[in-house]
Amino acid sequence: MGIILASGSPRRRELLEMLGLEFEVHPAVGGEHPPEHAGPEEIVLSLAGAKAAEVAEHSGAENVIIAADTIVWLDGGLLGKPHDEADAARMLGLLSGREHEVWTGVCVLRGAEALAGAEQTFVKFRELTPEDISAYIATGEPMDKAGAYGAQGYASLFVEGIRGDFFNVMGLPLCRLGKMLGKLGVKLL
Amino acid sequence: MGIILASGSPRRRELLEMLGLEFEVHPAVGGEHPPEHAGPEEIVLSLAGAKAAEVAEHSGAENVIIAADTIVWLDGGLLGKPHDEADAARMLGLLSGREHEVWTGVCVLRGAEALAGAEQTFVKFRELTPEDISAYIATGEPMDKAGAYGAQGYASLFVEGIRGDFFNVMGLPLCRLGKMLGKLGVKLL
Repeated sequence: MGIILASGSPRRRELLEMLGLEFEVHPAVGGEHPPEHAGPEEIVLSLAGAKAAEVAEHSGAENVIIAADTIVWLDGGLLGKPHDEADAARMLGLLSGREHEVWTGVCVLRGAEALAGAEQTFVKFRELTPEDISAYIATGEPMDKAGAYGAQGYASLFVEGIRGDFFNVMGLPLCRLGKMLGKLGVKLL
Repeated sequence: MGIILASGSPRRRELLEMLGLEFEVHPAVGGEHPPEHAGPEEIVLSLAGAKAAEVAEHSGAENVIIAADTIVWLDGGLLGKPHDEADAARMLGLLSGREHEVWTGVCVLRGAEALAGAEQTFVKFRELTPEDISAYIATGEPMDKAGAYGAQGYASLFVEGIRGDFFNVMGLPLCRLGKMLGKLGVKLL
């Protein structure tokens, strides 16, 4: 039996490494479109499930596959990765001084057994000045991240507080994942 | 001008490094006793202030000194660092299935200018089994930490969610610290 992380996210890899887990990384290509008119829970469950299924096709049934999808949700819609710096500035302006939601869907597969769940965390930004936004974009940190920020980095200076699992904002809700893996016989501790 | 972190905590050092800050580490010896019959806010402000003052005595007035003190607060009392493994098991048993408070006091000094503030974060643990507690103690992680756990490590599997600043639980409330340093003319971003 091996454990496979179906994600190329360096942050997810770091979180599993923090738990001393031995695993391989087989990133899903993904590229699925989220279901139309869906809410955040349905979107992340559907995308995480698709990633898990994709990697399972090329993997032995004895392996445990962990897939996840994280989105930033504001005003009833998705904030994806910014297209360019102007788009990052637009997103950070939307997040300024307000609370938004971060959702991660997790799907864990082992042969015919499948478990899935979605975790919600609320994140409150302080008011950002145009100078804050320019300086943050100049660090390069926003460009590859949903919602144009990473919770563990310079944007820690923007986050007044959260409600929920912090690691969910980084891309893996560890407490929930630990319970799911436990049900499949994988002990993390 | 230099920046001095008046703390030997490796977690605080990592957080400032994450922000790309250049600083020296001059740990305060500490050893002050918290004021008797005090609440958590008064305790952390008083201990952080004492650490800052101690390091300031041996430091030039042009330097910026950052000192902090973090406590775990439950049922109207302090949970300090565990004396031994049995004490760690006792503390983890108290935290199991409940919400507790983590308070960090921060004191920033620059010559005659001083700023201080305390940040509160609520942390909710899932129910822990005796096996969870033994396995966690066997990792060695609890022994040097207030409340017998570290939020960033194996105990991430125990924390269902928080309310407040996650970095406060690690020992430095970064959003608050950023605002304080800004008032003293030190820009973190």
